[in-house]
Amino acid sequence: MKLATSLQEIQPSYIREILSAASAPGVISLAGGLPDDTTFPLALMAKSLSDLSNKTQLFQYGNTAGYTPLLNYFRSLYQLPASHSSIVCTGSQQGLDLIARAFINPGDSVVMEAPSYLGAIQVFGLAQANIESVSQDPDGPNLDELETCFATKDIKLFYAVPDFHNPTGVCWSLAVRQKVAQLCQQYKVGFIEDVPYRELRYKGDFLPLVSSFCPDNSLVLRSYSKIATPGIRLGLVTGKADWITALNTVKQAADLHSSVPMQAVLLDLLQHPDFDEHLVKLRALYYSRYQALSQQIALKLPSNCYANSVDGGMFIWLSLPDCDVDALAQSALEHGVAVVPSSVFYQDRATVIPALRLNFTNASVEELSEAVDRLAKVIKLHC
Amino acid sequence: MKLATSLQEIQPSYIREILSAASAPGVISLAGGLPDDTTFPLALMAKSLSDLSNKTQLFQYGNTAGYTPLLNYFRSLYQLPASHSSIVCTGSQQGLDLIARAFINPGDSVVMEAPSYLGAIQVFGLAQANIESVSQDPDGPNLDELETCFATKDIKLFYAVPDFHNPTGVCWSLAVRQKVAQLCQQYKVGFIEDVPYRELRYKGDFLPLVSSFCPDNSLVLRSYSKIATPGIRLGLVTGKADWITALNTVKQAADLHSSVPMQAVLLDLLQHPDFDEHLVKLRALYYSRYQALSQQIALKLPSNCYANSVDGGMFIWLSLPDCDVDALAQSALEHGVAVVPSSVFYQDRATVIPALRLNFTNASVEELSEAVDRLAKVIKLHC
Repeated sequence: MKLATSLQEIQPSYIREILSAASAPGVISLAGGLPDDTTFPLALMAKSLSDLSNKTQLFQYGNTAGYTPLLNYFRSLYQLPASHSSIVCTGSQQGLDLIARAFINPGDSVVMEAPSYLGAIQVFGLAQANIESVSQDPDGPNLDELETCFATKDIKLFYAVPDFHNPTGVCWSLAVRQKVAQLCQQYKVGFIEDVPYRELRYKGDFLPLVSSFCPDNSLVLRSYSKIATPGIRLGLVTGKADWITALNTVKQAADLHSSVPMQAVLLDLLQHPDFDEHLVKLRALYYSRYQALSQQIALKLPSNCYANSVDGGMFIWLSLPDCDVDALAQSALEHGVAVVPSSVFYQDRATVIPALRLNFTNASVEELSEAVDRLAKVIKLHC
Repeated sequence: MKLATSLQEIQPSYIREILSAASAPGVISLAGGLPDDTTFPLALMAKSLSDLSNKTQLFQYGNTAGYTPLLNYFRSLYQLPASHSSIVCTGSQQGLDLIARAFINPGDSVVMEAPSYLGAIQVFGLAQANIESVSQDPDGPNLDELETCFATKDIKLFYAVPDFHNPTGVCWSLAVRQKVAQLCQQYKVGFIEDVPYRELRYKGDFLPLVSSFCPDNSLVLRSYSKIATPGIRLGLVTGKADWITALNTVKQAADLHSSVPMQAVLLDLLQHPDFDEHLVKLRALYYSRYQALSQQIALKLPSNCYANSVDGGMFIWLSLPDCDVDALAQSALEHGVAVVPSSVFYQDRATVIPALRLNFTNASVEELSEAVDRLAKVIKLHC
């Protein structure tokens, strides 16, 4: 059978492909966006998991929107107004896919920062959206470009990761958040706020969600892969009730509902008295790794390689002098270190700025040091 | 935001809407396609569930195609040829959705029997397929209509539930299976074989899959909702490797992968030494309920109401004299019995034949008897 048109231009995710190569013996992987599995709060989940077999109702068909006690908990946790609701998804990836399917016709225009999250490029590519890019400043999207884009084109959605952006780690300033919200309202652009790394802040104060400044004009995507575990595949979308209803209709066709036992286990975990302590430890570990990777880069890489500093998240964005980043990433893999070249994060290959995304959450301090040694050799060869 | 065109004509699932009304106190529900939760093999799953908290790797991101030991088990269980592969889905509903997204362009033609599974009508509706209907005989689709349809129209897929069809319970004969496979090959139509009820056979011999007669021309959708439990949301698609690769690309965008802990629990369950005994008991219970419902219908309903006899599955199709089935179903709910009117199973409302789908797996023999009493009153009022 011939593939659907929407699929013909979609490439399988480079990152998901590289992950199998990256798991070869001897390779240190800074490629994935993987949390460290030694941090998984399985001890806090153990009772809940073993109690499942006494809870028959959790194994029956469930509501499409999610397990009711979990939805109630989220309503309170995120202080949703009465006019808003939420839907549990099979990972926040599904939430994004449901949004694209519910609101995007082929040819509709969607704005993203460039570079941007690969999974979002895939989703909007499958939806055959026209993707418009705006460049990214150290405190968020370039506001002049964004306003010009909104003013001159018929934009339906702006998708962004304002807290510790994937791949760059950039965190939007308060002023940028307020201005983006104002522009979205002014130009009637739906704001899709993806916050998988929001809880992974290592320094500085939590900033309000962009959507808190335009609540009826936005949808928020939350992930439990980073603070709980990815394998359970649970995320959430919150926003205006009629928008969530549209996602619900698509989800009925997409998978009926997400795993109910996993939702019950997540609820128990989020309410566990030691869950906050788990987050404190998680942040401390990741921060120490971030600091180690930063220091190693400053120490061992040439001065024309520039790593931004981040306040949270999972990634460092290492800007490089002009070079073929794909060849460099391939060569790095051959030298035993897996990284992701900047090229995969751009919708328009012509605009690629040479850089590497380096993950620091899933390697020890010793491995990070060794990885930078290997990277230094490869960069010397290619740049 | 304005809804996407594909969503504007999709109605939320009547069945999923009615299920909440059907759960009101005092209502006996024959409406859902729910297994009886007292049959869930939780005792066989208990150790596996409580062991999860020692298996860190199951909580990390997983492969999109599924948990490797489970995929290996399925390869052996279903005796997949080397050129075929499989992908685990978030319920077989997701498998169907992935197929539609991978292969259907808006306007492509898909054949279904009328009546047909509502979830499939929703999926192909979202994909903006042109749905062609063929009528159903007691041993499967009307072959003359089917061949005329294949010969005169450009048909991409034929979607069917050959084992104990939802909603009618019809099981295709061997001769029909062979002929459909031959026609699909002759006219190059992909055959999508959905077999969620296949293991729920109460009498007669298992018949070969239709796809066993056209293996390179078909995809098989399997569900573990009926033989294991629905809440874990796991299904499978098998078929030619390059077709499964296409589904894999869509699934990366759709949800990355399905819950890994649930996949590990399913594998343990399917391999449990007492699993076959569980299926034997399940079939015996459901068969006794089927017999009870049939007898009650013969005893209490007027002779112009005709219930087909079935060899398996979860449903009886009760044909009615001419009446407004929607009004009848609404009235039945008011009289304390939830049923699904035939109208929801037809793509083309003009062709609706008056009937009710009655589920017999999720009510006791006493409840089934009381339900038919209530139904008899309502039918007297409406027909």
